[in-house]
Amino acid sequence: MTHPRFATFFADGRSRYGLVGNQGVVDLSERYGSSWPTLREVVADAAFDRLLDKAGGFAPDFFFDQITFQIPVPAPEKIICVGVNFPDRNEEYKDGQAAPSNPSLFIRFPRSFTGHDQPLIRPPESPQLDYEGEIVIVIGKGGRRIAEADVLSHIAALSLCNEGTIRDWVRHAKFNVTQGKNFDRTGAIGPWLVPYRDESQLADIRLETRVNGEVRQSDRTSRMIFSFRKIVNYISTFTTLVPGDVIVTGTPTGAGARFDPPIWLKPGDIVEVEADGLGILRNTIADEVL
Amino acid sequence: MTHPRFATFFADGRSRYGLVGNQGVVDLSERYGSSWPTLREVVADAAFDRLLDKAGGFAPDFFFDQITFQIPVPAPEKIICVGVNFPDRNEEYKDGQAAPSNPSLFIRFPRSFTGHDQPLIRPPESPQLDYEGEIVIVIGKGGRRIAEADVLSHIAALSLCNEGTIRDWVRHAKFNVTQGKNFDRTGAIGPWLVPYRDESQLADIRLETRVNGEVRQSDRTSRMIFSFRKIVNYISTFTTLVPGDVIVTGTPTGAGARFDPPIWLKPGDIVEVEADGLGILRNTIADEVL
Repeated sequence: MTHPRFATFFADGRSRYGLVGNQGVVDLSERYGSSWPTLREVVADAAFDRLLDKAGGFAPDFFFDQITFQIPVPAPEKIICVGVNFPDRNEEYKDGQAAPSNPSLFIRFPRSFTGHDQPLIRPPESPQLDYEGEIVIVIGKGGRRIAEADVLSHIAALSLCNEGTIRDWVRHAKFNVTQGKNFDRTGAIGPWLVPYRDESQLADIRLETRVNGEVRQSDRTSRMIFSFRKIVNYISTFTTLVPGDVIVTGTPTGAGARFDPPIWLKPGDIVEVEADGLGILRNTIADEVL
Repeated sequence: MTHPRFATFFADGRSRYGLVGNQGVVDLSERYGSSWPTLREVVADAAFDRLLDKAGGFAPDFFFDQITFQIPVPAPEKIICVGVNFPDRNEEYKDGQAAPSNPSLFIRFPRSFTGHDQPLIRPPESPQLDYEGEIVIVIGKGGRRIAEADVLSHIAALSLCNEGTIRDWVRHAKFNVTQGKNFDRTGAIGPWLVPYRDESQLADIRLETRVNGEVRQSDRTSRMIFSFRKIVNYISTFTTLVPGDVIVTGTPTGAGARFDPPIWLKPGDIVEVEADGLGILRNTIADEVL
C-alpha cells in the first residue's frame, strides 16, 4: 500500500504545499491556504485526512520538473537530532565506553537543510562532507513530559533526513558538534511528509543509504538503541514540544568517516536515503559558489 | 553616561516593546508597531536612533510594576552560546588539555529563557540549577563569513544573559550539552537591549554575577579567550547570521558547580548578572509547578 505524501515546494514564484501523486503535485496551498497556510498548520490541526478527502480527485497542478522541493515543515521551532542510536555506532567510537544510558542530542538550524533533489553544499572550508541517513518524526500534538505510552499519539508525520555533516568541524572545538552539523544546506529533509497512522510504519522498517547506487548504511529501526517512544519522552522532559517540531532519530553504521581511508562526498555523487513506506530522499553534491 | 535601553514586555494584555526610563516604559509598539512590529524589526532596520528621536519627550505609559519583562528579541532565529571562554574556565575542567583553538558552541531554544525579574524555573528532575552570567550580542546586519575587521558593524545591540544550566543533565549523554542547557525557562536574557555604538561598550567591561548579594563570578571582557570579533567571524563561517540572532558569549569562572561541595540555586535565591553599561539582570528562583 502506498501512503499519501505531502510535500512543500517552490513553484510559480512562491512556496507551496501539496499532495504528491505519480505524475506531479496537487497544489493544496492554492486551494486551502487560508485554512492551513503551510504544512506546519496542517500538522498542528491534524488535517491530513481532511485534505485527502478534498484533494483526492484533482489532477496535478505541477509536474515534477516544474517544482523545487523544500524541507517539508517550513521554519520548525526546533530540529533536534539524536546521535549514536544504532548498536554498532557506539563501538565505532572505540573509546571503550559502554552504550550510553541517555541519547546524545544536538540541534540543527533549518537553514542547515535543503529539500529533496537539491544539491548538498560542500563548503570551501572542508572536503569532509559526509552523509547520515535517518528517519524523521514530526510532532503533531505538543506537550511536555510525554509518557512513553502516549508518544505515538503525538506524532503527526514521518519523513527522511540526510543528516549531512562536515566531519572535521564536528570535533573542531572542545565540546559539542554544533558547527560540523550546521553548515548551511549540508543536509536534506524530505522528500515529503507521510502521515503517521500506525506503529507498523515505524516499528521495524529498513533504513538504507546509498552513494552512487552502492549501499553504505543499512539497518532496521527495531535495532535502535533508543526507541521512538523513548526519544520523544526524553526530549519532552526538558523542553516543551510544539506542532511541527522535527526529531531526527539517528543513523546506522557506515558513514564515509568509518572507511579507512574515509570516503567523503564530492560533486557528481548521488546520495539516496530510503526507508520502507517513506520513499527515497535523493540529493546531489555541489561545491559552494562564493 | 546612561545608554538608551529598549525592552520587550507584557502589559495590558499583550507583548509590547518600549524605551525604558527611570519611572517606567514608553510604549513604542503602540505608536510605531506598524513600522516595526517587534524589537527584531527594530534591530533589522537599525531604527534605534529614529525611535529615540520620536520617543524622547514622552512620559511613561507603564510603571515598572505594571509590566512583565520578556526576552528582548522575541523568537530569534538562532540563539548560539559559547562555552569555555574565560581563561580559568578551561583549567576548571582539569582534563589536562590545552586551551582550545576554536570556541565550543551550543544552541539554546528561546523557550529555555525567561525575562528579567521573572523566576528561573527549577524542574523536579534535578536540584542542580546553576547560574552563568554572560554578555549577549544581537546581530543587526546579517551575513556569512563576516571578516573580523567587519564584525562590529554587524552588531546592533547588547544585553545580558543568565545562561542557567541543569548541571547534571549537561553530561547526561555521551556527547553534547543540549539537554542540560534547554530546560524550559532555566535561563534569562535582559533586562533590555542597549544599542551598540562603540567598541568601548564591549572591549573591557566588567561582568559580574551575584547570588543573594555575594559575588560569585567577576571578570573583564578583555580577558576572553575568543573575542567578540572572533566569535562572530567563526560562527558566520558555517551559518548565515540574520538580524535578531542572539550570541551568548561565555561565562567567567565561579559557577556553583565549581564549589566543593557545589552550591546549587534554590527557591528564595536572587541572582544578579551585571555588566558596565548594560544594567542588572535580576531573577529569582522558583520550583516548577506541575
